[in-house]
Amino acid sequence: MSESDLSDRLYRLRHSMAHVMAQAVRDLHPDVRFAIGPPIDDGFYYDFDLGAGPDGRPTTFSPDDLAAIEKRMRQIIAGKHPFQYREVSADEARTLFAGQPYKLELIEGLTKGDVDEYGVERDEVDVDGASGGAGDAARAGAAAVVISTYRQDAFEDLCKGPHVEHTGQLPADAFKLLSVAGAYWRGDEHRPMLQRIYGTAWLNKKDLAAHLLMLEEATKRDHRKLGRELDIFTFDDEVGPGLPLWLPNGGILIEEIERLAKETELRHGYQRVRTPNLAKEDLFLHSGHLPYYADGMYPPMELEGVRYYVKPMNCPMHHKIFASRPRSYRDLPLRLAEYGTCYRFEKSGELIGLLRVRSLQMNDAHIYCSAEQFEAEFLDVIAMYLEYFALFGIERYVMRFSRHHKRGLGKKYVDNAPLWLHTEDMVRQAMHSGNIPFVEVPDEAAFYGPKIDVQIWSATGREFTLATNQVDFAQPERFDLTYTSAGGGAERPLCIHRAPLGTHERLIGFLIEHYAGAFPVWLAPEQARVIPITEDHNGYAERVAAELRAAGLRASADLGADRMNAKIRDAQLKKVPYMLVVGDQEMADDTVAIRRRDGTRGEPVAVGAFAADVVERVRVRAATL
Amino acid sequence: MSESDLSDRLYRLRHSMAHVMAQAVRDLHPDVRFAIGPPIDDGFYYDFDLGAGPDGRPTTFSPDDLAAIEKRMRQIIAGKHPFQYREVSADEARTLFAGQPYKLELIEGLTKGDVDEYGVERDEVDVDGASGGAGDAARAGAAAVVISTYRQDAFEDLCKGPHVEHTGQLPADAFKLLSVAGAYWRGDEHRPMLQRIYGTAWLNKKDLAAHLLMLEEATKRDHRKLGRELDIFTFDDEVGPGLPLWLPNGGILIEEIERLAKETELRHGYQRVRTPNLAKEDLFLHSGHLPYYADGMYPPMELEGVRYYVKPMNCPMHHKIFASRPRSYRDLPLRLAEYGTCYRFEKSGELIGLLRVRSLQMNDAHIYCSAEQFEAEFLDVIAMYLEYFALFGIERYVMRFSRHHKRGLGKKYVDNAPLWLHTEDMVRQAMHSGNIPFVEVPDEAAFYGPKIDVQIWSATGREFTLATNQVDFAQPERFDLTYTSAGGGAERPLCIHRAPLGTHERLIGFLIEHYAGAFPVWLAPEQARVIPITEDHNGYAERVAAELRAAGLRASADLGADRMNAKIRDAQLKKVPYMLVVGDQEMADDTVAIRRRDGTRGEPVAVGAFAADVVERVRVRAATL
Repeated sequence: MSESDLSDRLYRLRHSMAHVMAQAVRDLHPDVRFAIGPPIDDGFYYDFDLGAGPDGRPTTFSPDDLAAIEKRMRQIIAGKHPFQYREVSADEARTLFAGQPYKLELIEGLTKGDVDEYGVERDEVDVDGASGGAGDAARAGAAAVVISTYRQDAFEDLCKGPHVEHTGQLPADAFKLLSVAGAYWRGDEHRPMLQRIYGTAWLNKKDLAAHLLMLEEATKRDHRKLGRELDIFTFDDEVGPGLPLWLPNGGILIEEIERLAKETELRHGYQRVRTPNLAKEDLFLHSGHLPYYADGMYPPMELEGVRYYVKPMNCPMHHKIFASRPRSYRDLPLRLAEYGTCYRFEKSGELIGLLRVRSLQMNDAHIYCSAEQFEAEFLDVIAMYLEYFALFGIERYVMRFSRHHKRGLGKKYVDNAPLWLHTEDMVRQAMHSGNIPFVEVPDEAAFYGPKIDVQIWSATGREFTLATNQVDFAQPERFDLTYTSAGGGAERPLCIHRAPLGTHERLIGFLIEHYAGAFPVWLAPEQARVIPITEDHNGYAERVAAELRAAGLRASADLGADRMNAKIRDAQLKKVPYMLVVGDQEMADDTVAIRRRDGTRGEPVAVGAFAADVVERVRVRAATL
Repeated sequence: MSESDLSDRLYRLRHSMAHVMAQAVRDLHPDVRFAIGPPIDDGFYYDFDLGAGPDGRPTTFSPDDLAAIEKRMRQIIAGKHPFQYREVSADEARTLFAGQPYKLELIEGLTKGDVDEYGVERDEVDVDGASGGAGDAARAGAAAVVISTYRQDAFEDLCKGPHVEHTGQLPADAFKLLSVAGAYWRGDEHRPMLQRIYGTAWLNKKDLAAHLLMLEEATKRDHRKLGRELDIFTFDDEVGPGLPLWLPNGGILIEEIERLAKETELRHGYQRVRTPNLAKEDLFLHSGHLPYYADGMYPPMELEGVRYYVKPMNCPMHHKIFASRPRSYRDLPLRLAEYGTCYRFEKSGELIGLLRVRSLQMNDAHIYCSAEQFEAEFLDVIAMYLEYFALFGIERYVMRFSRHHKRGLGKKYVDNAPLWLHTEDMVRQAMHSGNIPFVEVPDEAAFYGPKIDVQIWSATGREFTLATNQVDFAQPERFDLTYTSAGGGAERPLCIHRAPLGTHERLIGFLIEHYAGAFPVWLAPEQARVIPITEDHNGYAERVAAELRAAGLRASADLGADRMNAKIRDAQLKKVPYMLVVGDQEMADDTVAIRRRDGTRGEPVAVGAFAADVVERVRVRAATL
């Protein structure tokens, strides 16, 4: 089966599964009101409204409910009911879905041609005909206003398909209902809260088992869980949501990542600056963050009659540094780097561990260059991404070229269509020259220019959006940045915004899950732990730990009262790369017996030789122990 | 002449000089209204009100006015007029100073016993009888309300002396009027702006000349001037006052200072954390910053109905980290370090370059320890200060032991007198044990406990308050911080707040002036500049610079069109430690000819040997080139 055949088959299967689930819910909860139920990656969901309970809150599904629904679904599957398509007039549809207010609202939208049957707004045809990303299905059907349904057994749903032929083609042993979550009707927090049941469905039992195992692994690797267990970060109610406090082990990760970034950026010719975390309103009006980005900003503080904002981005500050003295072509490219801390407003309900936060310390830099230098600079940034991906063993990634959309001009995008198209061409050209594969995505640019967003996948296949590389044609003009060309005239530089390592918050969230907390030795908060076999070896254990620390390693000796095996378990739990067990023999020979955290053991080795080996692994940031 | 005799003689001389200046001003500007005119370090001043000009603004003195006043002062001195003391009743005083509203206000205060003749509020007698610092004179005279005047020639001023015997004892050739500055009456911005004339006065011409030379040198070293010339920092109107932008050279200074702090703190057993720059109001209510420190804080931002503040201090965040998990006596002392950025409100009119700013990145740490550990921890902090002073060649410093004052209890100080006295005893005891000389200053503690403030003097004798070491008995209680003692009970830790390197802003301001911008090589933004004798040597110059950079040094080659001498001048102006001149001979021998920035020259030396020598100086942070 080809990739696209497979994908089509899974799409139909999951889509039909959503209908079967909806029927099962209706059979068990006859008063339910239905919203929408699309197939998604790995499965399907459906949103239901069960009405409010006696406390006024929306009634939800219990785990027992899910089990009963699954059971009823299997009965429907066993019935081998065909999926039957028909087209209906708007009036027929209204009659058919009488008493189903969400469906009736969708029918109104469909009739007007505003939305598809999932309530997704239909876009005007894309600016230059390219397509991609979510919403394609919606666009494809935009031309004709046809209302259609699919029916299986006694259940009919607003739908344009496609589906399997009959329920008997659905795998009764290869699906599972996973969870229930609240979801606002049409994603609008001012509209009713619905109950969304998520399910997963596969071609066969084996694929389902593999998927459930992956989910279990992902739960074990969840950075919120490991972050707590490994003392990396914490949140505090009085500090506030989305504002992580980095504990000492997190402090070490941050310091090591900054060291990496600084070394790399020095090698690539960057200079480091440091700028304040807040500034006058004037600066953000000047940059255009106000009003284009106002929704993402914290509210102002008023001081001596002046409004100050915590910065949502570092760029306006760097532009000010560029502008702080006359610049000549000899100064370009000027690459200003800063691990700057920005503050962005995200609704507290949408914050997720380290992955969506309000305080972001960013691997930021701005490159000011001439048009001729653009391509080389842009590709050097891409090369830096690839260096980092190799270092962290990130094998799967996608470069998304995020473009503007003409309907956002003057709203979320700077209002200059020709410059958008020109700059997007430059980026496309650079990516082609550098032979970098990418996908184009309309309507996801920054407000001041197009960007490359990089999505990466962790070792277990979880997707993260990490790095970004943006071209800015708008801000250099707004700030009237100029340099004197070789000919003596005033020229406008281009500006590249880039953050290959993203933010500390998101990168560390990713790395925790990617490594399941078992960091390579250069990142490991504790690199070696010396474990004495008995109390008699405590003194020697301490001397060994001191020698390792003197060599620049992060090492300790576990001199607690526990037995040796308990100490080894504890060090493994903390994912310490090297456990050095020391007893009579080691003490006599001035050696250590190495146990790595993966359970493998090394030959006894002299303390100095072990230290030198690990110091070298740290220096080259080796992936292996 | 003993130190105290000298000090008394200079005090009288400067005090009398202020009266003579006031007379001269009155003789030249008969309508002037007088405020106050005390002696100060190095001289004297007097505040005058010349009324408003046609534009409604206060009339001020021109440089010509100052010259005329100086000339008239010399005439008064030549008159050998005796200084005559008399006591007057309040009514006599009111008659005498009719038409002098400032003097009349002072007389009312004096009559009520509220203020001294300079308008300084008389304090109640100090809490435990110790005295020191400003305001002593005021306190000494607090018991009796006596109004007295001094008169010379035809000029009589409200004054209780002391003075010289007659104006002939004043040195006509050893004083100088320096400047005019605006000053609010009684320091209150809601009261009239007065014109303050500053003068300096000495025993003889030679001392005056030395002082003027020092002032000239200080002007040359002014960190605002050098900061601009050496590209270290800048301010921007749109970013806001008191919010420095660090340029790349400033970025290097900051990175080097942080590296120093991190190495030192690692050696002293600190762990690094990182915390957000803002937090909910709740945190600062909990810590007591609200209300005790509210005046020093930025106003709140309101988000989803919650008020957030940018942090004025890092401590509450560190307390939260301490409290984030159960602690045992085995965890103590727990030393949490962070180069944390804090925001404090200072009136925009009171900001001074890097020395008084609104954004402060602080060499902060908090040490949580038991009472038994306190002395060793406290002295270790003092030892760290002394390490840093030795490194930076800071030879003159004073440790000021800043205590509470009972009148501030429950206002600026936490309301627990016995704990204040107990904690102050612990600090005094520790300072005695460590044999550390210190002076005690009442009423300058932090709100949560006593502190050691460290004043240092730059190479040219300018005074800076840099570091601080504070004991906190209040916040551990407010945050209910506890640890399990060896016996199993819950104990309260003490907390030491310390910042030996102060803030980046103030330390770098100090270092610029201390070194006059000629930083030791480890700090120098550019460590070596290679200067080719002719264009023919450009290629070699570049190779040398590349070799130095490969060795980890900050080096460049000056390949511009200027002649060699111009390049050397430019490098000297930028205070580059090493200029490496290269010509035919050097190119043939693979050597460089060293010129240090102080003008001394070294023998030609192999490039590798030069690099190794400088790398070693950087490693040990040598003071010499």
